[in-house]
Amino acid sequence: MAINEFEQRRETVAGGLAGRKLDGLLVSFGPNLRYLSGFTGSNGLLLMTPGKAILLTDPRYTLQAAQESTCQVRIAKGPLVEEVVDAIAKLGLKRVGYDPALMSCDAYQSLEAKLPVKTSLVAVRGWIEELRMVKSPLEIERIRRSVHTNSRAFEQAVRRVRPGMKEQDLAAELEYRMRRLGAEKPAFETIVAGGARSALPHAQPTAAPFRTGELIVVDMGAIEEGYCSDMTRMLFLGSPNAKVKRTYKAVLEAQLAGIDAVRAGARTAAVDAAARKVLKGYGLDRAFIHSTGHGLGLEIHEPPRLGKRDKGRLKAGMAITIEPGVYIEGFGGIRIEDTVVVTETGCEILTETGKELRVS
Amino acid sequence: MAINEFEQRRETVAGGLAGRKLDGLLVSFGPNLRYLSGFTGSNGLLLMTPGKAILLTDPRYTLQAAQESTCQVRIAKGPLVEEVVDAIAKLGLKRVGYDPALMSCDAYQSLEAKLPVKTSLVAVRGWIEELRMVKSPLEIERIRRSVHTNSRAFEQAVRRVRPGMKEQDLAAELEYRMRRLGAEKPAFETIVAGGARSALPHAQPTAAPFRTGELIVVDMGAIEEGYCSDMTRMLFLGSPNAKVKRTYKAVLEAQLAGIDAVRAGARTAAVDAAARKVLKGYGLDRAFIHSTGHGLGLEIHEPPRLGKRDKGRLKAGMAITIEPGVYIEGFGGIRIEDTVVVTETGCEILTETGKELRVS
Repeated sequence: MAINEFEQRRETVAGGLAGRKLDGLLVSFGPNLRYLSGFTGSNGLLLMTPGKAILLTDPRYTLQAAQESTCQVRIAKGPLVEEVVDAIAKLGLKRVGYDPALMSCDAYQSLEAKLPVKTSLVAVRGWIEELRMVKSPLEIERIRRSVHTNSRAFEQAVRRVRPGMKEQDLAAELEYRMRRLGAEKPAFETIVAGGARSALPHAQPTAAPFRTGELIVVDMGAIEEGYCSDMTRMLFLGSPNAKVKRTYKAVLEAQLAGIDAVRAGARTAAVDAAARKVLKGYGLDRAFIHSTGHGLGLEIHEPPRLGKRDKGRLKAGMAITIEPGVYIEGFGGIRIEDTVVVTETGCEILTETGKELRVS
Repeated sequence: MAINEFEQRRETVAGGLAGRKLDGLLVSFGPNLRYLSGFTGSNGLLLMTPGKAILLTDPRYTLQAAQESTCQVRIAKGPLVEEVVDAIAKLGLKRVGYDPALMSCDAYQSLEAKLPVKTSLVAVRGWIEELRMVKSPLEIERIRRSVHTNSRAFEQAVRRVRPGMKEQDLAAELEYRMRRLGAEKPAFETIVAGGARSALPHAQPTAAPFRTGELIVVDMGAIEEGYCSDMTRMLFLGSPNAKVKRTYKAVLEAQLAGIDAVRAGARTAAVDAAARKVLKGYGLDRAFIHSTGHGLGLEIHEPPRLGKRDKGRLKAGMAITIEPGVYIEGFGGIRIEDTVVVTETGCEILTETGKELRVS
């Protein structure tokens, strides 16, 4: 009987092995490993069979693995691949699944060379990621707390923004606040970029000081209890001119249109198209150089993706971002991003922070 | 003529292609990509030939790639693998190297399927990592600055330690200080663990408060100008008892013995053995459950490794950690770690922070 969320998930996977003609599955990718075992160490390998879950790790994690996981733990002295070959051989497994997108050529070749001849490796793509896309109520609560912490950290830190403050000092302040509010760490490198540098969608904070008359983009996320949040807001020092106001309005309308298009059953590409269409009306669609959003959970970027060419439909319980943006060399970039949860009839916007351009 | 460090390194690689019977090399792993191109984005692929360096990335990084790199930049609309196939075909390359440890089965199979029949992929393991092991004077200066920032952040933050302070709040303070002092970010999740939890070599900071009579381990590193530092120090609240003092003395002696064994030409395993032998003299060798150290640079863990079974010898210019530790369930863990640079006659200890047990 399943007694915790990890055991429940392992039951789902164990129950799905036969339908895939597998008698074993190898899981090595960190977030998938954590999802199925609870183990958070940096070196682990999970071997699942219909009745067993064996977690392999190294001696640094002996105590931690036993504390975090109810799997059967084995401590390997050498490479985990060798230890798992031994376990597969002893269990007499014949068809063991692995994900070719998440296994290196080397690991694959090493397994192939060492496994008994009667054992074959079977490519199984994205199975655990697919399970992870729809979040449980418990996971949604964790994401909600992470979003809440992130927004509070933003409010506490942006109060200090003034001309002359460095990008990297605001980034440090944002991350410090989120940790003091209970986050384990930032979900990604906090983006703080002023002026023309805001036109880099993934700008790293520099020692450049904020100046009056400049846009500032803040893109930040927290990890709390393992779960990510993601939010982008824009600040402006001084009085925004007509071009800034108009561009901001366009992006905000696009973001609201994207959110409006979210509901269970909607095509991910349709959400992207809704945001893109608004920007087209403003002649800004060519300045929108990325997709409208992405799933998040144990990873900051996970399926689904909400881009022009993405197939697939939203399902209730998916946690996604909606984040159109425009990037104009010399002028700067404007992006507005919320974290939302898909519902049957639309979505719940988890991000509480107001979406006006913050002028100070 | 090489005008910057990246171009110099690319010349080295370009000059080494013929000797490996290659007319091209694919580099996709982030730190290797940065080492050869300067590009720091999250999605990139470098194709090198004897005369060309083509950097492929996606539209999010159009501006950034042009700013960071002197490679010829190509912006791919779809998967980078497809774009690189096109480039390889147009250049008529016949033998293109790739690292099987750093390429997924999927990427490999996709390349294999799409490349012209006359092009073959050739496994080349660890070449760029090998070049990266020996640091240039410029790189050593960056590591030195990173180490210095890390030590200053430690001094500023540990002043605040007192009973009742939470592990995670000290971790937040340490990371905030390093960023304010100029670091881009922590090099890894800062480890702060009090009491029995210090026996987990990779403990994540929790909401547990420090208590009098407890050991506290602090393992922290900064990244500055892309380069890592790494240091572990121990704190104690109250009066350490005889067991704590004796164990601390053993680990400190082991650490000094490890440092003493470092010099160009020394076997990495001999450095490990020197530290391990001291702990054996105290009956503590079985509590030392990891290797004595590791290289660091653009990555926090990179070759060489200084463990019992590691082959290879140290070279002048390698930056490594020396960090023996003992871990005793119920009692706690003690680890002491410095970052050092190997010289012809020994090493330079970059870490300035005193190594006494900090009692407060």
